[in-house]
Amino acid sequence: MTTEDIVLRPIGVVEHEVPDEQVARKRRELIGDIVLDPALAPALEGIEGYSHLMVLFWMHRLTPTGRALQVHPRGREDLPRVGVLATRGREHPNPIGLAVVELLSRSGNRLRVRRLDAWNGTPVLDIKPMDRYDLPETLRVPAWWEALGGPPGPSGR
Amino acid sequence: MTTEDIVLRPIGVVEHEVPDEQVARKRRELIGDIVLDPALAPALEGIEGYSHLMVLFWMHRLTPTGRALQVHPRGREDLPRVGVLATRGREHPNPIGLAVVELLSRSGNRLRVRRLDAWNGTPVLDIKPMDRYDLPETLRVPAWWEALGGPPGPSGR
Repeated sequence: MTTEDIVLRPIGVVEHEVPDEQVARKRRELIGDIVLDPALAPALEGIEGYSHLMVLFWMHRLTPTGRALQVHPRGREDLPRVGVLATRGREHPNPIGLAVVELLSRSGNRLRVRRLDAWNGTPVLDIKPMDRYDLPETLRVPAWWEALGGPPGPSGR
Repeated sequence: MTTEDIVLRPIGVVEHEVPDEQVARKRRELIGDIVLDPALAPALEGIEGYSHLMVLFWMHRLTPTGRALQVHPRGREDLPRVGVLATRGREHPNPIGLAVVELLSRSGNRLRVRRLDAWNGTPVLDIKPMDRYDLPETLRVPAWWEALGGPPGPSGR
């Protein structure tokens, strides 16, 4: 398998005024901006036609946790221990974040979005407009996920 | 804004027997495997509880096209010219692919999935299990997208 390193560059940055420690708890209503490199503004032309975007970002200030391969979701020991790739927590091997956000407006190289649960200053790697092919007809999630309900704790989902 | 390079490593690789030039056309029914680094098998524990995954991959054999910032979707000049970030084509500034796939089965470090429109041998960067927070209540897409219908051409969506 390929093991060579991959190098990429941010295309923009997340801007909002919510302190890091409140982002996970407030994320459902969090409104923030994605500010792209001004040279990339033409690449956003027509993005206003979509209601939702999938935003990829780089969790650059994440403190490595020792690379655990399994976790209790949200740190709750009453939930089954699962692999990190079976959760949306921050402990994935590559610290890439993915958020489905609502696009509220665009002004030049600036997108205003809702539900981007990234810390202020986070580098943005890519933006994928969400289309109907991204919506499964039916979706199944683990029993522990269904049982959770309520807002996420400080470690997110 | 942050301009430092970001370095990451593949966690696995895509395996299937469909020739590159047929992947876009056949993708809706394409069944293939994601083979993870065997050391990461424990990180998949419990992923079978999800029906769908969002797979991030590195389009490593993509030939740079001169970094166009705007394109006609699917190369069709009868469609409006839009920014590359307003399409799901391959011309994004960072060549990261994102596919929503159906998880069919898991065997150790191997996941069998449907609709992974990545070429055989593509490095995989991350896997995000899809949950109900990822599904918008309503989704709006541009008029040109709605008008398209039919299977994608060789340049994908």
